[in-house]
Amino acid sequence: MSSSGDIEALIEMMARLPGLGPRSARRAVLQMIRKKELMLIPLADLMHHVGASVRDCVECGNIGSSTICDICANEKRATGEICVVEDVADLWALERSGVFRGRYHVLGGTLSALDAVGPDELRIPKLIQRVQDEAVSEVILALNATVDGQTTAHYIADQLEGRVRLTSLAQGVPIGGELDYLDDGTITAALRARKDL
Amino acid sequence: MSSSGDIEALIEMMARLPGLGPRSARRAVLQMIRKKELMLIPLADLMHHVGASVRDCVECGNIGSSTICDICANEKRATGEICVVEDVADLWALERSGVFRGRYHVLGGTLSALDAVGPDELRIPKLIQRVQDEAVSEVILALNATVDGQTTAHYIADQLEGRVRLTSLAQGVPIGGELDYLDDGTITAALRARKDL
Repeated sequence: MSSSGDIEALIEMMARLPGLGPRSARRAVLQMIRKKELMLIPLADLMHHVGASVRDCVECGNIGSSTICDICANEKRATGEICVVEDVADLWALERSGVFRGRYHVLGGTLSALDAVGPDELRIPKLIQRVQDEAVSEVILALNATVDGQTTAHYIADQLEGRVRLTSLAQGVPIGGELDYLDDGTITAALRARKDL
Repeated sequence: MSSSGDIEALIEMMARLPGLGPRSARRAVLQMIRKKELMLIPLADLMHHVGASVRDCVECGNIGSSTICDICANEKRATGEICVVEDVADLWALERSGVFRGRYHVLGGTLSALDAVGPDELRIPKLIQRVQDEAVSEVILALNATVDGQTTAHYIADQLEGRVRLTSLAQGVPIGGELDYLDDGTITAALRARKDL
């Protein structure tokens, strides 16, 4: 009796993860139970391990196992450039491209009047402090191209104006993108930022 | 360093679950880490708990916390009817409908010449033994309407013929189904099994 309750509870909790619904959570739980030694137990062990060791980097807000994350602790990463992102998922996306060799700053969200998120709820004061304390030459605002993301970018640009070079990601046609499928805003941005060949 | 490795390992393992890919696994793991006390730790605890307690019912092959599952242990469930299903997911689907009040028998798969799955790899001998030992009046073959499922149903029907009433699920138009979207096989089956009003 109790285990069926536990299995139900496990399915319900799995179903709350993004990307999983009740049906796929049931399939996932059954799969894990079928491969108990290969999936369920190792996954539970890993989760405990991550849960016990994970913490936010005091410098940039990235997650890692110590108070300074791997990127901030890596002396090969340039200290002069800080790439500002909304959250860790964005940092991971940039790291996958492998093209940026500087440091990051994870805000932990965007400014939002509706949700009462002000600069102090984000890591904006810490960013301003880093720009003052470290020899930062450029701050790249890699925020999402949403209203909240752009509002936050403008706020940060206001705060840092004159102290450091401020840049943002280019907007335009994505690689492999077909004009026919792009929204008007993207096409407008791509046209305005057109380049000489 | 080690925790980033652990987080990567956790994402890789989550990505192997059905219904999750690398991208959704990353999102799920980030979500779990953000809600560490509400998601990651309780989920790990539940998985350990389920992993330690779950076992197959010796009677029917359903999963539960003891050697006899909740359904087989429930004296209110009719012993005269056995519903034969391929796996536990199918049993759950039938239980959700709530209409069947007998017992189940989970085969654990289907006969398959390609994958070298014979009757002894499934729980078919145990099913035949149950039909002999228990006062079974009807065996409902609720196997999937696939080639392997129907081959297995035919094999079981051959083995049990004459000893017990054998039935299978009706085939036809699903509730809410639109003819225009149904495959030819379903329409053919529905036409052949048409009923007088």
